[in-house]
Amino acid sequence: MKQEYFKQNLQDPKPLTATINRSVRFDELDPLNIMWHGNYASFFEEGRMALGLKYNISYQDFYKNDVVIPLKKFYTYYVLPLEFGKVYTIETKLHWNEAARLDFSYEILFGDILMTSGYSVHLMIGKDKNVLVDKPDFFANFCFRWKAGEIL
Amino acid sequence: MKQEYFKQNLQDPKPLTATINRSVRFDELDPLNIMWHGNYASFFEEGRMALGLKYNISYQDFYKNDVVIPLKKFYTYYVLPLEFGKVYTIETKLHWNEAARLDFSYEILFGDILMTSGYSVHLMIGKDKNVLVDKPDFFANFCFRWKAGEIL
Amino acid sequence: MKQEYFKQNLQDPKPLTATINRSVRFDELDPLNIMWHGNYASFFEEGRMALGLKYNISYQDFYKNDVVIPLKKFYTYYVLPLEFGKVYTIETKLHWNEAARLDFSYEILFGDILMTSGYSVHLMIGKDKNVLVDKPDFFANFCFRWKAGEIL
Amino acid sequence: MKQEYFKQNLQDPKPLTATINRSVRFDELDPLNIMWHGNYASFFEEGRMALGLKYNISYQDFYKNDVVIPLKKFYTYYVLPLEFGKVYTIETKLHWNEAARLDFSYEILFGDILMTSGYSVHLMIGKDKNVLVDKPDFFANFCFRWKAGEIL
Repeated sequence: MKQEYFKQNLQDPKPLTATINRSVRFDELDPLNIMWHGNYASFFEEGRMALGLKYNISYQDFYKNDVVIPLKKFYTYYVLPLEFGKVYTIETKLHWNEAARLDFSYEILFGDILMTSGYSVHLMIGKDKNVLVDKPDFFANFCFRWKAGEIL
Repeated sequence: MKQEYFKQNLQDPKPLTATINRSVRFDELDPLNIMWHGNYASFFEEGRMALGLKYNISYQDFYKNDVVIPLKKFYTYYVLPLEFGKVYTIETKLHWNEAARLDFSYEILFGDILMTSGYSVHLMIGKDKNVLVDKPDFFANFCFRWKAGEIL
Repeated sequence: MKQEYFKQNLQDPKPLTATINRSVRFDELDPLNIMWHGNYASFFEEGRMALGLKYNISYQDFYKNDVVIPLKKFYTYYVLPLEFGKVYTIETKLHWNEAARLDFSYEILFGDILMTSGYSVHLMIGKDKNVLVDKPDFFANFCFRWKAGEIL
Repeated sequence: MKQEYFKQNLQDPKPLTATINRSVRFDELDPLNIMWHGNYASFFEEGRMALGLKYNISYQDFYKNDVVIPLKKFYTYYVLPLEFGKVYTIETKLHWNEAARLDFSYEILFGDILMTSGYSVHLMIGKDKNVLVDKPDFFANFCFRWKAGEIL
């Protein structure tokens, strides 16, 4: 079930990770009494934001640098349904990429049990509405330190 | 069941009205297989926007005049549950008000049957973030013509 | 700003209360970068469920007794907008009512600051789809103990 | 940009298709004033349901035959952002599959312009909560007629 969504090279630094808990709300349920499949986007987003906050590379940090980071690709793999009132763990990873692009993978867990996995790919768009070829300075600096092993 | 949410004086012009149809989507259902109660806000908003478009007094028209129109009050009265796959009619009324304020009432109907009613009250906020005491010019003009019987 | 939505008689027991925290998620924001007005229903519901869990009178407890508790009325009064990334407190009260009906009031607070208030009224529907005139036994027992001062 | 998400063999019947229009609602917008990325699941679902209704193979038709069809995989590829007030076309295809599984692909178009594409894969779950290995009879019959060229 464990899936590797992004290939890493040997010299790449290890993914950055963040963990956050979340339960399913009543309004997220569907008539089958499980979480509606479209609401996983909100779970993954909450995981992604926890990682952004932890490392100061949130969408607001990009925004302060005149860059927005819209999604290009979004994928969800459903293993087991999420149920009302249970608390799940969202584990998010940011994977190394040389390009001006963000590769996130996600796992939703109930204890040790994998409930869902998925990934999202984000591009970077500058003030002129064009896709950036190079990482913006603040994030290039961040990646430099990440590769140097200063960020864990 | 029919409720009058806003009192009118005899000399007030009649409410403006707009009608739009909408069906319930699968993701709007709850575990009881009826529309979740919070989604009525989206139905009412769609009715309000239909009225705004019809009379050129939409939230975008206000926005072009540096005014936003946030909600101050919102009320829903549930008569019968809305079901998946049925097409409902949303009837929206804008009620006359001398003040810089928008009073909308709503009815959701299935054919002749009243399913839901409700209202919303909106204030007007100017560029300086303060609540407007007087209607902005474009809307004062609109109200002048409304009262003169030129807008129906 | 403080509003009393339900009148109490002198001999009525005091409302039951529950408190829960919640922050605004990115997908709950609207283009004005504040929480969309329809999402307050989810905040109030989360408050209501916290109270239900605390006192064992949740919608699931009613359901186990063949009773559903749909909303009849729902009201929101908007004082200040909710913003992304801030943690708000939802204070929920269940008010005494002799009838087979649930009267909840809600306040959303940021520290001491009142951001929103509101209420919801719920009826009780039995297995035969009819509105109950009398409280179901388990809830009548609960109310007996509530009035006797055994539940706080 | 045009992507083929499911490989077809030469002898496979052509995909079934359905088209439905939908506009973006205010509550589906995010702070960047474009549709929030998670709401595409609702667009795709609406397309899928239009196809189900057209061919009598909706999730309700499966349900009547004691089969539910939960998602196993869901993918969205974002080309251009969706904007408020514009009407988009959702083109949905059901692709032939020998197995007890449903392969849908989706395109959201603005006129001729591809805005979004994606796919979803659904399994079939029987009354005993197990994944079906064989198609249920009503759908096997449907597929027989589809392959025979009787369904277009």
